[in-house]
Amino acid sequence: MKFSFEVIKESGRARRGILRTPHGVIHTPAFVTVGTLGAVKAVSPDDLKGIGTQVIIANTYHLHLQPGEKLIEQMGGIHRFMGWNGPVITDSGGFQVFSLGVAREHGVGKIAGIFPDENPDKGGHLSSRKKKKLVQIDEDGVEFISYRDGSTHRFTPENVIQIQKSIGADIVLVLDECTSPFHDYEYTKQAMERTHRWAKRAHEEFKRMENDEQVLWGIVQGGAYRDLREYSAEFLSEMEFSGYAIGGSLGKSKDDMHRVLEWTTPILPGDKPRHLLGIGRIEDLRTCIKYGIDLFDCVVPTRMARTGRFLVEKEGKDRINIFNSRYKDDPGPIDEDCNCYTCRSFSRAYLRHLFIAGEISGPRLATIHNLHFVENLMKRIREEYFS
Amino acid sequence: MKFSFEVIKESGRARRGILRTPHGVIHTPAFVTVGTLGAVKAVSPDDLKGIGTQVIIANTYHLHLQPGEKLIEQMGGIHRFMGWNGPVITDSGGFQVFSLGVAREHGVGKIAGIFPDENPDKGGHLSSRKKKKLVQIDEDGVEFISYRDGSTHRFTPENVIQIQKSIGADIVLVLDECTSPFHDYEYTKQAMERTHRWAKRAHEEFKRMENDEQVLWGIVQGGAYRDLREYSAEFLSEMEFSGYAIGGSLGKSKDDMHRVLEWTTPILPGDKPRHLLGIGRIEDLRTCIKYGIDLFDCVVPTRMARTGRFLVEKEGKDRINIFNSRYKDDPGPIDEDCNCYTCRSFSRAYLRHLFIAGEISGPRLATIHNLHFVENLMKRIREEYFS
Repeated sequence: MKFSFEVIKESGRARRGILRTPHGVIHTPAFVTVGTLGAVKAVSPDDLKGIGTQVIIANTYHLHLQPGEKLIEQMGGIHRFMGWNGPVITDSGGFQVFSLGVAREHGVGKIAGIFPDENPDKGGHLSSRKKKKLVQIDEDGVEFISYRDGSTHRFTPENVIQIQKSIGADIVLVLDECTSPFHDYEYTKQAMERTHRWAKRAHEEFKRMENDEQVLWGIVQGGAYRDLREYSAEFLSEMEFSGYAIGGSLGKSKDDMHRVLEWTTPILPGDKPRHLLGIGRIEDLRTCIKYGIDLFDCVVPTRMARTGRFLVEKEGKDRINIFNSRYKDDPGPIDEDCNCYTCRSFSRAYLRHLFIAGEISGPRLATIHNLHFVENLMKRIREEYFS
Repeated sequence: MKFSFEVIKESGRARRGILRTPHGVIHTPAFVTVGTLGAVKAVSPDDLKGIGTQVIIANTYHLHLQPGEKLIEQMGGIHRFMGWNGPVITDSGGFQVFSLGVAREHGVGKIAGIFPDENPDKGGHLSSRKKKKLVQIDEDGVEFISYRDGSTHRFTPENVIQIQKSIGADIVLVLDECTSPFHDYEYTKQAMERTHRWAKRAHEEFKRMENDEQVLWGIVQGGAYRDLREYSAEFLSEMEFSGYAIGGSLGKSKDDMHRVLEWTTPILPGDKPRHLLGIGRIEDLRTCIKYGIDLFDCVVPTRMARTGRFLVEKEGKDRINIFNSRYKDDPGPIDEDCNCYTCRSFSRAYLRHLFIAGEISGPRLATIHNLHFVENLMKRIREEYFS
């Protein structure tokens, strides 16, 4: 059996598990490192091995536009292409459709007003121009304009499965429509129902392809509306996906997000992994596993790294902004208890110098630290929480 | 004895040698990797160890402006600050004075018309504005305006020795005035004579400080004028520096440069190392060792790397521009005979994807390859040329 998921310990709703894939084992709860374009920004696969990265999530939408799934297939699939032999997930592109569409109109991310800086794709080159929608959704699928060159593309539930087969990740996701926290009940319901019809089509396409190198996960939608989330979780549970992602709008506050999880996870099958898409700030990792979440992905640790913000859990701080002049002559490492390459090798003073001087090794060394911090935190959570 | 230089083999004027420093041995002829700001751009010290880098050259002018020599001293010196335990040289800042001054007026580099793109410091932020000189040279030293914040600074032969003591490199250089290929005989002569007076003052200051952790090298000037180069080599040889750099204008063509070396190296003491400052294109490495050059430094391998140009010696090519569409679906490494991390791990197709996508790991992987290429070339030259 190439894929399996086993819950080995429980504490309330929280679970510790082992997710097996053809490219290795993932100990859950796990942080999924974002490698949108088939590369984790600023680091290379040997860095990731040193960090203890378990699994990477790449993006179907971005890889379809550059370098294209056919090239990746020709090069032997995403693992070989990017030189990473561990597990890989591909997100379907549904969130990017949202980002290029209604998120541009509404000016929001997954939770309204909470993460204004965290929209992983603001529309790229075009974002500084008019906030015009770059997508059109219809029953068949989605038509969108490339942020790279303005060319027109179409995603359907079926071709997204085919594209993801070419890319060759271990775990692939159905095409979904991600709604905005500002969408009303009626629109959110319609979008959810369409997402369900798309999920069925994706599921059929996946079966038709008789693909035993990959597993397909469904995505629960329904915004911050209880009956919709419950219905979506039930509907998708009956379809027997190999795993479940929780996507879409998570409301207007962290409390809303927790309520969505509160409603959703008890309905999802207990023997299948659950992935909370696009969420994974430090505070979220600790709280969301209590609701039975097994996997998180988030750009925050890597993005913060590139702007000189180092994650810590010290002296009441959750980060160090290395540009702060207090670190100018600080001979100590970012975190004296951290054994990442960056903390073993360099002082805060030197790291600050690299960022001030604009040296591109600064972002790499910060990324190594932040990813190591998150992996280490997840490891501690797995050990302590379930001991 | 902390420092020594031994010529172990000769072939014509070319020499193979061993240069010992408190931070390790340099086998010559050697390529000196440029780490202007106390960091080799895009890579870290562990990368350099993997590459086989022997020695780094940092820059007094740049480090004085950011982060300042006092901070480096407080952090335990340049080796500890940057996490590099191997030998370090600091250039004196004379070339930067030239870059900010007459090079801006004349629009030239070290060899007129040959390397228009290679001026290592075009004046930074200010270069796009008026080409006004940012320095004033007088008998006492040089006054210059910081490219970072417009503040005024003064370098003298004495304070450059003090600054370099604070930085703490193994090998330090005297402050010199670098002339332009368009300077006439009279100005070149005057500048050379002032450089000689500065060399004496630097030498005295260095002796006064009773510094046995560093050695001081002189810099031969005299432009492309035979009698001036010969006189400068003689004058400085009598001062018994621990080593000699050849700086300044090398004329208007590669032939001019070779003639300068032809005149200069026979006069310099045979038992002292010779460093050709700022020169080190692939073709120069092979030709210049024939004139008895032991050390080269050049930004070209690292700068080319950051723009996607990979060094090779194959099929009549000396580089691969990875943006070229012919590499789009090329599954092979940059060089199948290269055993650097980049060539062992990634295809041309993937490296092209990284550069097209703007991933910052692209420049790092290219830098690893290019520096490995140059180190490997020097190793082959040492082995083959003197066998």
